[in-house]
Amino acid sequence: MMKSVDKFEKISELARRRGFFWQSYEIYGGVSGFISWGPFGAAMKRRIEDKFRDIFLRRLNFYEVETPIIAPERVFKASGHIEHFKEPMVECLKCKRKFRADHLLQELAGIASQETDRMGLQEIKHEIEVRKIKCPDCGGEFSEPRYFLTMFQTNIGPYSESVGYGRPEAAQGIFVEFKRLYEQVRERLPIGFAQIGHALRNEISPRQGPIRLREFTIIDLEFFFDPENPRCPLLSEVEDEKLRIVLARNRLRGDESPVELTVKEVVANGYVMVEWLAFFMALGKRFVTSLGIPEDKQRFIEKHPWERAHYSAQGFDQEVYLERWGWVEVAGFNYRTDYDLKGHMMESDVDMRVFKPSDKVTTRTEMRVKPKLQNISREFGEKTPEVVNLLKSVRSEDLIKSFNEKGFYEVGRLKITPEHVEIVLEEVKDEGKRFIPHVIEPSFGSDRLTYAALEYAYTIKDGRVVLKLPRDIAPVQIAVLPLVSRDGLPEKAREIYKMLIDEGFTVEYDESGYIGRRYARFDEIGVPLCVTIDYQTLKDNTVTIRDRDTWRQIRVEIARLPWLIYNYLRYKINFEDMGPPIEK
Amino acid sequence: MMKSVDKFEKISELARRRGFFWQSYEIYGGVSGFISWGPFGAAMKRRIEDKFRDIFLRRLNFYEVETPIIAPERVFKASGHIEHFKEPMVECLKCKRKFRADHLLQELAGIASQETDRMGLQEIKHEIEVRKIKCPDCGGEFSEPRYFLTMFQTNIGPYSESVGYGRPEAAQGIFVEFKRLYEQVRERLPIGFAQIGHALRNEISPRQGPIRLREFTIIDLEFFFDPENPRCPLLSEVEDEKLRIVLARNRLRGDESPVELTVKEVVANGYVMVEWLAFFMALGKRFVTSLGIPEDKQRFIEKHPWERAHYSAQGFDQEVYLERWGWVEVAGFNYRTDYDLKGHMMESDVDMRVFKPSDKVTTRTEMRVKPKLQNISREFGEKTPEVVNLLKSVRSEDLIKSFNEKGFYEVGRLKITPEHVEIVLEEVKDEGKRFIPHVIEPSFGSDRLTYAALEYAYTIKDGRVVLKLPRDIAPVQIAVLPLVSRDGLPEKAREIYKMLIDEGFTVEYDESGYIGRRYARFDEIGVPLCVTIDYQTLKDNTVTIRDRDTWRQIRVEIARLPWLIYNYLRYKINFEDMGPPIEK
Repeated sequence: MMKSVDKFEKISELARRRGFFWQSYEIYGGVSGFISWGPFGAAMKRRIEDKFRDIFLRRLNFYEVETPIIAPERVFKASGHIEHFKEPMVECLKCKRKFRADHLLQELAGIASQETDRMGLQEIKHEIEVRKIKCPDCGGEFSEPRYFLTMFQTNIGPYSESVGYGRPEAAQGIFVEFKRLYEQVRERLPIGFAQIGHALRNEISPRQGPIRLREFTIIDLEFFFDPENPRCPLLSEVEDEKLRIVLARNRLRGDESPVELTVKEVVANGYVMVEWLAFFMALGKRFVTSLGIPEDKQRFIEKHPWERAHYSAQGFDQEVYLERWGWVEVAGFNYRTDYDLKGHMMESDVDMRVFKPSDKVTTRTEMRVKPKLQNISREFGEKTPEVVNLLKSVRSEDLIKSFNEKGFYEVGRLKITPEHVEIVLEEVKDEGKRFIPHVIEPSFGSDRLTYAALEYAYTIKDGRVVLKLPRDIAPVQIAVLPLVSRDGLPEKAREIYKMLIDEGFTVEYDESGYIGRRYARFDEIGVPLCVTIDYQTLKDNTVTIRDRDTWRQIRVEIARLPWLIYNYLRYKINFEDMGPPIEK
Repeated sequence: MMKSVDKFEKISELARRRGFFWQSYEIYGGVSGFISWGPFGAAMKRRIEDKFRDIFLRRLNFYEVETPIIAPERVFKASGHIEHFKEPMVECLKCKRKFRADHLLQELAGIASQETDRMGLQEIKHEIEVRKIKCPDCGGEFSEPRYFLTMFQTNIGPYSESVGYGRPEAAQGIFVEFKRLYEQVRERLPIGFAQIGHALRNEISPRQGPIRLREFTIIDLEFFFDPENPRCPLLSEVEDEKLRIVLARNRLRGDESPVELTVKEVVANGYVMVEWLAFFMALGKRFVTSLGIPEDKQRFIEKHPWERAHYSAQGFDQEVYLERWGWVEVAGFNYRTDYDLKGHMMESDVDMRVFKPSDKVTTRTEMRVKPKLQNISREFGEKTPEVVNLLKSVRSEDLIKSFNEKGFYEVGRLKITPEHVEIVLEEVKDEGKRFIPHVIEPSFGSDRLTYAALEYAYTIKDGRVVLKLPRDIAPVQIAVLPLVSRDGLPEKAREIYKMLIDEGFTVEYDESGYIGRRYARFDEIGVPLCVTIDYQTLKDNTVTIRDRDTWRQIRVEIARLPWLIYNYLRYKINFEDMGPPIEK
């Protein structure tokens, strides 16, 4: 009996054979949780990241930064990761294998993750015992569950006390440097800073190929705004975008079906705490849709408080449907409030607040304590400077109260009496106030997005794989092919190849084998256009262009190729607009 | 007396203030060896990396891959890093500070690095004693020197025996996966695979800002070729390029002056072991020159055997001159031979060889040992399969020799006599052979290149900083500025801003303050073109474009802006070609 092969297996086979991705370190038996992106996968993944840059940064005038992966321990103490970034683990007492305890409960006892997420170690232990869960490998008994810190730990420099960690998110690199960044953009608010880079999570026992990785590319955008001014002026640009949302209240009733709401409705109904959250969710949907993932294969899940990360006051996961794993998170949208900046402020003692000037400067009258120097010096002599200094930090209200009650005020063992000071009224200008900005974070997993785009692009036509990738994320843009490898066709084709390279396109040249086999090869890696040089080319300087998805062909003058292809790849024109069809 | 401020300090100040780079984790006191790239620095650095992609990958039809930063221990055992990637260290017995011992000898005793590089621990110890070198911080005595492994160590997963390291180079990710990669490109040779990504080196006590980092971006290109076919067919494209090379033979005599040679001469004189080495050095020179670093501020240093990395059979460093540090390496060009693939082949037991078909299939006659089954089984009974198996690995020549000398052949304690075997002659087709490809590696430091580009772009004009970055690596391409922020000019300017954004440019909009101050601001971050909207714009739909470097202005129709700017940024036209100058 043939085992049925699912889409993940098919794509993995294609990906391994044609250079998209595969498990790393195969020659050493492979290491779970690590994948390598090959020639075409890396190019495609990079184009997806560039698309994020275009939609979320360039068009919004936000900025990308690049900070280190390794950070000293204090960063993650401040961020709450040392305390919270851990998972429950059990060890088989017989075979010594270690497992994620909550995953065992999900997989072997069918308990939903929204349940296991709220269990403490005691409850997990209890469930394992009650449900008689044993090691799935050898049937052995399990140890007591304990927490495992899922960050990679290392030492910075030769001193063993300088502990460092690999970052589990790129966000902290932005929070830690926020003070600088804010100055560099001339104190603009609201403002977004993003970081795209490798992140590390030392998963206990990762499986699921490209879905659960120990090292992956994270795309974190930290959007800072004034909590007293939470309106999103760009909302009108996305207000009719429809979002499919699984609401937390419905989930509690076991109802996981999404409600479809426009962004406008989401905001009006108060489903988001901050308008910007809905704005970024709409952009997230557009971004993921542009990768070729249909709208009805996407949804947003509103997270329960106990499912959210420690820093999150409200959170939605963006999920896409994948054949093997069902609904899989590809992005998270979290309202991080001032959690992170406050944490770093407390740990570092550096003021991370920003200054907001008032709309109009107001003045108010304040009492101030003014030392009477002569009288002080008469009584305190050489201690006068000390007394004057101490008086600076005394609140006039406290002073007056103390004078009234005791007739003096004691500060640093010195008795201040009314004759030492004068209380003056002063005009104080109220020019603004200091506050910690709040943060909305859209965060994407680049590897998962790339895998999802591959899964939805994977189609079979006439028994062959055609990878119908969106034009602008296809790793190779054009293939240039002489019809046969003789009669001057290769020379002409190389000329055209060189011209297209000089124009900045990503091009492959191939003259080996029958033309149909070559087309098949390029269909398999998703090249949208094949330019073929035939005998007619030598006569009239025209070439054929073949469309990957329809296999239709048109005929075009060589000189017009760059302009046509440039606009085709930017979705400014369609295939049919490029030239007259060829009758077969 | 004022301390004179060198270029590094000036650039650091600018970089910190305007968002290029600064030391990471400032709020926690900073951590040596880590820098953060801000909004404009990160963008500029990425453009430099994209330029590498263009010159070394897209135009040569080589590929980029992306593999993990963390690798299991065996990878670095095979690569020789566990054995070789270490530095001599001493500890001050009084203040406990640790130092690179060779750096101390260089800085405090003036010994050249080409000397310290060849010293062992004993010699280092001896020099420290003889030269009475004490702790530069507290004057204390030093410990015995010992080696410190300069890789970041961690654990993969929850098992303490699964040691992993942060990669000190991106190259190993390519070597480890070479077998797969080679199949994926349909067994093409020669072929190049590159990787651009973070690398980690746990330096003992890094200083020097962006020059010596513990975490940095490496650009590794591994070029694989057949050592029996080492010719570079692309050499003619670069043969007249001039390289300034400091030859090892001259360095031994203390002569560090470069000789200027064309690539053709370098090859003809046998200064490189493989033509490709000279080819890539020429591309390296073009690349670095295109970043704005003058040719006479670049040179190549031929490394002595003891200065080279453990894998290198020949190596040249590409250096640029920086004001504070003198000549600084920005790239290395090494002939890595088959060192790495061989290492992984031995460690993993996986055949990393490639198959080369012969030009024409030849046949030759070979003797083969054929077992006489009946006779063997009569004598050896149930041991027959074992005997047959053993005979498979016996060379017929050895067998015949042994029969002639002793009358029998002993294998696995069994005596084989002539009656057990038959020697037959067989036609063998020679279809090709298997070999390990050799490797040439150009490797660039992205952070250093970005810093060097900043240093050479940094100029003062009329007392203000103008960052004369090459157009194609400037982080922001265009600034759009209404002359004043009233009378409808901002509205018109925003329209133009939006049009340029839609065309794909990186644009800043700014209406705050006097126009001269705005120009100054954009000069400081190196924006090549400022587009200004004035009262005339409202009348005739023209705008002015201002050139950052000359401050000259031209007048241009709005509709022509995208096409002109597009070609200007690609160096297809010059500023003067864009429109008529404005008389001042």
